[in-house]
Amino acid sequence: MTRIAICAPGTPITSEDAARVEALAKAEFPELQLDFHPQCFADGGHFAGPDEMRLGALLACANSAADVVWFAKGGYGSNRIVAQAVEALSGRSAQQQWFGYSDCGYLLAAAHREGFARAVHGPMPVDVRREGGTDAIRRALGWFAGARAGLEPDLGGQPAVAFNLITLAMLCGTRFLPDLTGYAVLVEEVAEHLYAVDRLFFHVTEHLRGIAGLRLGRLSAVPDNDRPFGSDSEAIARDWCERTGIPYLGLADIGHDAANKIVPFGLAADFARS
Amino acid sequence: MTRIAICAPGTPITSEDAARVEALAKAEFPELQLDFHPQCFADGGHFAGPDEMRLGALLACANSAADVVWFAKGGYGSNRIVAQAVEALSGRSAQQQWFGYSDCGYLLAAAHREGFARAVHGPMPVDVRREGGTDAIRRALGWFAGARAGLEPDLGGQPAVAFNLITLAMLCGTRFLPDLTGYAVLVEEVAEHLYAVDRLFFHVTEHLRGIAGLRLGRLSAVPDNDRPFGSDSEAIARDWCERTGIPYLGLADIGHDAANKIVPFGLAADFARS
Repeated sequence: MTRIAICAPGTPITSEDAARVEALAKAEFPELQLDFHPQCFADGGHFAGPDEMRLGALLACANSAADVVWFAKGGYGSNRIVAQAVEALSGRSAQQQWFGYSDCGYLLAAAHREGFARAVHGPMPVDVRREGGTDAIRRALGWFAGARAGLEPDLGGQPAVAFNLITLAMLCGTRFLPDLTGYAVLVEEVAEHLYAVDRLFFHVTEHLRGIAGLRLGRLSAVPDNDRPFGSDSEAIARDWCERTGIPYLGLADIGHDAANKIVPFGLAADFARS
Repeated sequence: MTRIAICAPGTPITSEDAARVEALAKAEFPELQLDFHPQCFADGGHFAGPDEMRLGALLACANSAADVVWFAKGGYGSNRIVAQAVEALSGRSAQQQWFGYSDCGYLLAAAHREGFARAVHGPMPVDVRREGGTDAIRRALGWFAGARAGLEPDLGGQPAVAFNLITLAMLCGTRFLPDLTGYAVLVEEVAEHLYAVDRLFFHVTEHLRGIAGLRLGRLSAVPDNDRPFGSDSEAIARDWCERTGIPYLGLADIGHDAANKIVPFGLAADFARS
């Protein structure tokens, strides 16, 4: 039996989302035991409950016997509790996986840097809402059950991390981002104007000299600007890589969509089928 | 005669904007000579001309006999030419003022860090379009003519800088931001959601430990989110200052508006009436 404890460090999901995910798990992955913390459904203002409640649920999951802490949804807010989580958990060994993406990247970064959990980028319960979302959920559940089919296909033998671009930008230079020297850094973004994406690449490439290279995931739901930017996302990524001497390593199969693949932080080989 | 050379490192203005500013200067400040570089009106895609054209105009203004290089407009783009400007100008002494705000903060930061120009935050020609915009233009022209009435009123005897918040966030940790230890840092923002402002404060306060303190200018045109953030801009600034041990020093009279006051980088006393 693999135990999955679920909390929402940013914004909430609904009990209907949780019920759909639980039904899928029960039908197809009977060896998994899912435990949605009630904080997942807390809906007080912007966040899934105040900082103290979200931190409390995160630490309750982290300190339980769970094999995996699965983040229910991103949105915004995990950066507001990451310092406290680091303070509470630093020093323990990385038996547990922390699994999610988007805004939860703050927690994944800190877990990988401090080594108190094994960070993995991958689909979250909220993705059940997407078209084709059950495939995304199935990919995560399969991973928890030991399958490795959901891995991003081009990780090779190189250490990697995956981040939402603005989350990575906000982490750069802080005490929460691991040293990424020698890593492939995969980025994806949603709902940002291309000029803002260009600006974020300025920032992250200034910070990431020394990485093995950058790979570009999908940019989805790019809003129209008052005038066209004149360059697409891959040209933007290539341009800033070239300016800063960072190898551009091509596209990555990640994004805010149902096809979003799994990227374990570090070496994928360290996450062999258990 | 004080000579003002004007270029547009980001996005363009119109010849009508320039004509209105020139007419005001001619009528009220005959001792000023304004020279709008034709690049100010270049309208090829997103930017006021390609990077090479914008850099060329900036360097032409910088290397002319102008006493002041006045940036016509922000928008987005000065970060794309800042590295080249530093390469071309580093080592020369700071005889010239560079004057503007918003996206032009990348150039102001680099000029102050490298010491090749005296950076000043203040109104730009594009502000003539605003309601009350002629007052903003008059404030800048008055400063060029030697008046000090347009100074932000609470600078005191402390070194200061002023930035658009996202511009400052993108500068943090890069080779373009000066060491701000002991500085009062004034920030303002426009057209960002409050949750994004909160996220930016997370980033900049992580980077700015050691500053004398933070002062909050105006946040204008804040878009409505799908749900209220539950906190206002001053509460956000206070919160992140408290979390990181940065003194919160109160409000600042700067913003994307006609009342935007002048903030010389460094000590205002070093910019005494000439």
